[in-house]
Amino acid sequence: MSLLVCVTKRDNTKLLAKLRALLPGVEINEWPHCSALERVRFVLAWGAPDNLWPQLPNLELVQSYGAGVDGIAMELLPEQVVVTRIVDKKLAEDMAEYVLTHVLAHKLRLHQYFSQQTQRLWKPKRAHQGLHVGILGIGELGKVAAKRLIANGFKVSGWSATDKRVAEVNCYAGESQLPIFLSELDYLVCLLPLTEHTKGMLNRNIYEQLPNHCVLINVARGLHVNEEDLLWALNNGELAGACLDVFAQEPLAEGHPFWSHPAITITPHCAALTSIDTACEQIAANYLALISNGRIFNQIDRVRGY
Amino acid sequence: MSLLVCVTKRDNTKLLAKLRALLPGVEINEWPHCSALERVRFVLAWGAPDNLWPQLPNLELVQSYGAGVDGIAMELLPEQVVVTRIVDKKLAEDMAEYVLTHVLAHKLRLHQYFSQQTQRLWKPKRAHQGLHVGILGIGELGKVAAKRLIANGFKVSGWSATDKRVAEVNCYAGESQLPIFLSELDYLVCLLPLTEHTKGMLNRNIYEQLPNHCVLINVARGLHVNEEDLLWALNNGELAGACLDVFAQEPLAEGHPFWSHPAITITPHCAALTSIDTACEQIAANYLALISNGRIFNQIDRVRGY
Repeated sequence: MSLLVCVTKRDNTKLLAKLRALLPGVEINEWPHCSALERVRFVLAWGAPDNLWPQLPNLELVQSYGAGVDGIAMELLPEQVVVTRIVDKKLAEDMAEYVLTHVLAHKLRLHQYFSQQTQRLWKPKRAHQGLHVGILGIGELGKVAAKRLIANGFKVSGWSATDKRVAEVNCYAGESQLPIFLSELDYLVCLLPLTEHTKGMLNRNIYEQLPNHCVLINVARGLHVNEEDLLWALNNGELAGACLDVFAQEPLAEGHPFWSHPAITITPHCAALTSIDTACEQIAANYLALISNGRIFNQIDRVRGY
Repeated sequence: MSLLVCVTKRDNTKLLAKLRALLPGVEINEWPHCSALERVRFVLAWGAPDNLWPQLPNLELVQSYGAGVDGIAMELLPEQVVVTRIVDKKLAEDMAEYVLTHVLAHKLRLHQYFSQQTQRLWKPKRAHQGLHVGILGIGELGKVAAKRLIANGFKVSGWSATDKRVAEVNCYAGESQLPIFLSELDYLVCLLPLTEHTKGMLNRNIYEQLPNHCVLINVARGLHVNEEDLLWALNNGELAGACLDVFAQEPLAEGHPFWSHPAITITPHCAALTSIDTACEQIAANYLALISNGRIFNQIDRVRGY
């Protein structure tokens, strides 16, 4: 039995060294350098090509190298294959700090003042007064963000596909409660999992229901955003701004209109970077659990997709 | 007896209306429109010219229209004149939020990413890891800022001229403890009062004692900063950045080198704007106390100067 690392478009030197240190004696290969694919029972995957999966007849577990599993072509995996993800408490804290920082940055007009500085303009203005933040997709990450926002004086509402209860958060659920959730937000934070149902969910219909002064913060996945509709909303006064950390295509193409839009703040998918140490500990624990028939951690529900 | 408003370089329409509503029947004049200066016993001052004071033979109280009293030429006032300032709880909260926001903005590299966005550059980096914030001048405002920073995971040290104790803050006092206070900070926040002793205090000597990766945040007064030394420190790697809300001359002159310095973030004296409502309530209360020999609020120590 062997472990295959298929984490594409990055240098995995540190990751492999750390895994080998944690799993001495285990055969660990890095895709595409793997001569015996039939021995692979465990794959660590990020951006893995679809054609990998049919080549692994004895695959038992796919471990996503991140909090999401949307890079894994679930429909190509046999039903019995277990899919897991990284659940990093630090990652949730980092995400919460990103959300808080960018909400505060808008409240205190940092982008506006940075831009005025380049024009040598002195124009003091009172901070924005709105304090109501809505979290679309209030799951494990959303709860941590909500707590941090509340501790800093914000009012938080949350929406999820199914009923949730979170301390001090007004929770809404399902399609029918989406309009009331959206109707009085000052900030909308997207923390949805990416599934068939949520892909493109941030579209004209949502933007029209938000107050015009609302600011969108997307820290989930680029594919949640209908890009054309977002530009339409910003250009037509339906939305005041957007702070985007994730994009349909990453890195964002040099010619993309988002780069130069005055109401868009771009960060390069840095809201929450998986810590190699934390991730490797979870990967090693799951590998050892698999070979000893122990408990697999952080499995996702393959039907739901998250 | 009358009240004279001498708040210069701004439109005082709202301020005067509010004061007149709170003090019906009281003679309120706006400098320089005041025919009977001998009747003036109470002056509300901000940026008042020095030649005003010798013209007021019956002056009893000068109320500064702000948290500081540094705009008032104390040496020109007879000894028995009481000087007061505005103590606005909201102002302390606003100041704390400004400090937290700019510390977080540096930690999460907002300025760096804003600048990369203008160049269409995609360069994700981990957040800065330093969490140690030093507050130079830990008084009423500093305590509120410290609390907010601590609640957000930062470690706070404080320095003041005389001994202070603040919960969860390592407090240092006096000249002798300044070097140890400065030696391991990631951020230095200046919240000093402006006095003869603190004017120009942020100079080469201080910058050299700070770690090179430290960032200065000045929300006190522009005159605390030796501007030439600050440029020297930033250009020679003695300091990583400066976030400045206050300047020796405001508005900052169009030709000033701070505007275009890549390591300087400028905001137009907006960290804490006095709320007209809160200020007027305190001004009216002090006026009524003065005429009824009641207790005057928020007096400063004229010898100490704050």
